[in-house]
Amino acid sequence: MMRTRPLKVALLGCGVVGSEVARIMTTHAEDLAARIGAPLELAGVAVRRPAKVRAGIDPALVTTDATALVKRGDIDVVVEVIGGIEPARSLITTALEHGASVVSANKALLAQDGAALHAAAGEHGRDLYYEAAVAGAIPLIRPLRESLAGDKVDRVLGIVNGTTNFILDKMDSTGAGYQEALDEATALGYAEADPTADVEGFDAAAKAAILAGIAFHTRVRLDDVYREGMTEVTAADFASAKEMGCTIKLLAICERAADGESVTARVHPAMIPLSHPLASVRGAYNAVFVESEAAGQLMFYGPGAGGAPTASAVLGDLVAVCRNRLNGTTGPGESAYTRLPVSPMGEVVTRYHISLDVADKPGVLAQVATVFAEHGVSIDTVRQQSRPDGDGEASLVVVTHRASDAALTGVVEALRSLDTVRGVASIMRVEGE
Amino acid sequence: MMRTRPLKVALLGCGVVGSEVARIMTTHAEDLAARIGAPLELAGVAVRRPAKVRAGIDPALVTTDATALVKRGDIDVVVEVIGGIEPARSLITTALEHGASVVSANKALLAQDGAALHAAAGEHGRDLYYEAAVAGAIPLIRPLRESLAGDKVDRVLGIVNGTTNFILDKMDSTGAGYQEALDEATALGYAEADPTADVEGFDAAAKAAILAGIAFHTRVRLDDVYREGMTEVTAADFASAKEMGCTIKLLAICERAADGESVTARVHPAMIPLSHPLASVRGAYNAVFVESEAAGQLMFYGPGAGGAPTASAVLGDLVAVCRNRLNGTTGPGESAYTRLPVSPMGEVVTRYHISLDVADKPGVLAQVATVFAEHGVSIDTVRQQSRPDGDGEASLVVVTHRASDAALTGVVEALRSLDTVRGVASIMRVEGE
Repeated sequence: MMRTRPLKVALLGCGVVGSEVARIMTTHAEDLAARIGAPLELAGVAVRRPAKVRAGIDPALVTTDATALVKRGDIDVVVEVIGGIEPARSLITTALEHGASVVSANKALLAQDGAALHAAAGEHGRDLYYEAAVAGAIPLIRPLRESLAGDKVDRVLGIVNGTTNFILDKMDSTGAGYQEALDEATALGYAEADPTADVEGFDAAAKAAILAGIAFHTRVRLDDVYREGMTEVTAADFASAKEMGCTIKLLAICERAADGESVTARVHPAMIPLSHPLASVRGAYNAVFVESEAAGQLMFYGPGAGGAPTASAVLGDLVAVCRNRLNGTTGPGESAYTRLPVSPMGEVVTRYHISLDVADKPGVLAQVATVFAEHGVSIDTVRQQSRPDGDGEASLVVVTHRASDAALTGVVEALRSLDTVRGVASIMRVEGE
Repeated sequence: MMRTRPLKVALLGCGVVGSEVARIMTTHAEDLAARIGAPLELAGVAVRRPAKVRAGIDPALVTTDATALVKRGDIDVVVEVIGGIEPARSLITTALEHGASVVSANKALLAQDGAALHAAAGEHGRDLYYEAAVAGAIPLIRPLRESLAGDKVDRVLGIVNGTTNFILDKMDSTGAGYQEALDEATALGYAEADPTADVEGFDAAAKAAILAGIAFHTRVRLDDVYREGMTEVTAADFASAKEMGCTIKLLAICERAADGESVTARVHPAMIPLSHPLASVRGAYNAVFVESEAAGQLMFYGPGAGGAPTASAVLGDLVAVCRNRLNGTTGPGESAYTRLPVSPMGEVVTRYHISLDVADKPGVLAQVATVFAEHGVSIDTVRQQSRPDGDGEASLVVVTHRASDAALTGVVEALRSLDTVRGVASIMRVEGE
């Protein structure tokens, strides 16, 4: 029952992802038509540099006037792969107003303005899909939103940034420092010239906001996500992690509080046990671990970026949105009915690995232990080591039981005020246990 | 926009999975209603033993007349968790004829009669969903059918049976033999009293048929799946695997031929490198590795069985089917438009690890190598070892390059006819490289 009138697709952006989307639409046209029930027609491609030659794309379709393209009124689906907030936000809104459904790969925009965009989609009875916005090709948003729709997700723990995973994996496997590993990532094209968005955790935080909202059926804004980058992770931290049978990953962690009445979302480097499935995620791969009440522990693994993998996710959404259109329906929109508040970082409960430089004399351990006790933070293990250079200092490594971030912050402030504590060398959270 | 008239659900079967479905429908009623847009009502529960007390289920809902229940005409969704071919097949067909959509966890039935059931669903404009039929709680059918709908899947490689993975993992980690590991699996409840369906690969073969059909948009019947159990895997095989940096898993493998014109589906034990993500899947967990043209390598991991995990998958489908019903639409049905033929096992191409007992004298290796050459099977490595007991025999281990199963069968027949080959100790395929 193939419909012959094609569904018209407008492509906004024709870079690494967009050109791959256009290529697959052409080379796999018959398969896509069979799966949708109607052929697709590339109706227009909005770009910034129209003079650039784009293999396989009819130059007559190329325009610099993206607004006119989305306003045409005959477009069935707009695929937005420009990225960034503006003009993407205005274009998506205008597209929805003019009757098009939208497929986007724009994590920054969805994290910041997802609620408003979903509202616009709902108002106009159109779809807004964005599987490609989180973890590239890995099916994650659809499984969370649909497959687990009858379950209660308690926790999402993921490696959602390939650049930082490449750097940390390199540091782990070669003993390299951060800068050296970053340089290699840059040389190989895994890191951008300005790596800030990746290494400072902004990219992962946007994904955490999106994932937390979907997982807990609430709204989590980008500002709600606690964020700590990984530029201060050292080779010494990896050595400490190894002693504990751990490695270090930059994790996005979304959790439901024990009482179920609030949620938290955060991005920071953390130690995880080598036995945890996320520990063996190598190179630029992404993986997301989901814990839910009935399903238990699930993991989704795959390439988190790149033109073809991201295009795969975009095209999956495109097929779904087109099927909905032919059926005169829409898929599940935003589900934010729980309205759970997002708690601040101080209320997050986890374990900590703290390295201190202390005076190498009797009584220091007792002093330090007293500080932890006074703040209600229970110590799991402690290891004291005299320094081989005999400068009168020792290293003290403390691993705590679970405690709130606020309590731990109090401990660290108090430790810094002790004469016998010369410095707090590092504090790292321990997750996945 | 909550509709107040509830959607009526009939539950067929109230064992480990069914009772968990009923429990979650009750305890999470508000969440399910919010996600669907209408409340659910458990309208009837068909069981074989009505006298059994079922906590949380109103005895007035319990009936032994499943046929009358699915014929009532006011049922929106029938959830079938009886298993087996009959009466499940008749009940599902009758339910569809009487206007109900169906959610099933029945792998055997879907593998055998999926095409007919899909046709019945299509004819009556109803949904037939069965995420729980393959790999329990792991979202797999929805990602393959929807997330990867714009991609071209080339290969599915999975551990889809928890019982056999538990046994093989135990053999690997403890050096136990098959029987000892099976006994432990039985004692712990991971294996049934009659473990045939699991250990002989019948269960995995049903899942392979379902996965291959969905992945390649064609029809693959249970009879099309080559099947070899894992009862003959020995501790010696694990020792050989370790020497190669491998472990042994019972794998379901669905592949598109290199020319794209046919597919294969098979279940058998195989060596896989320890570096492969599937190698570290422990205990009764399942994991499925998917290779596609654009997305690259994806893996889906989680519990493959159990009441709660399977119920999670059933409820995800139930929410989806109910949403479709409220929207007056149906989800994607069977997609079998490619009509790709399924090639016989002889045409499968892979690598092989062959252990031979040979006479310990000069010239044997040359003879053996000649047999491989005559059948066009190229040798990768060969290792000859005199036996410490000095009985005049040696072990010869040959690992081949990629060759067809037919060619390898020819090699083995010819080897058996050599005087100098005393026996073929084991033949195992090597996958995932």
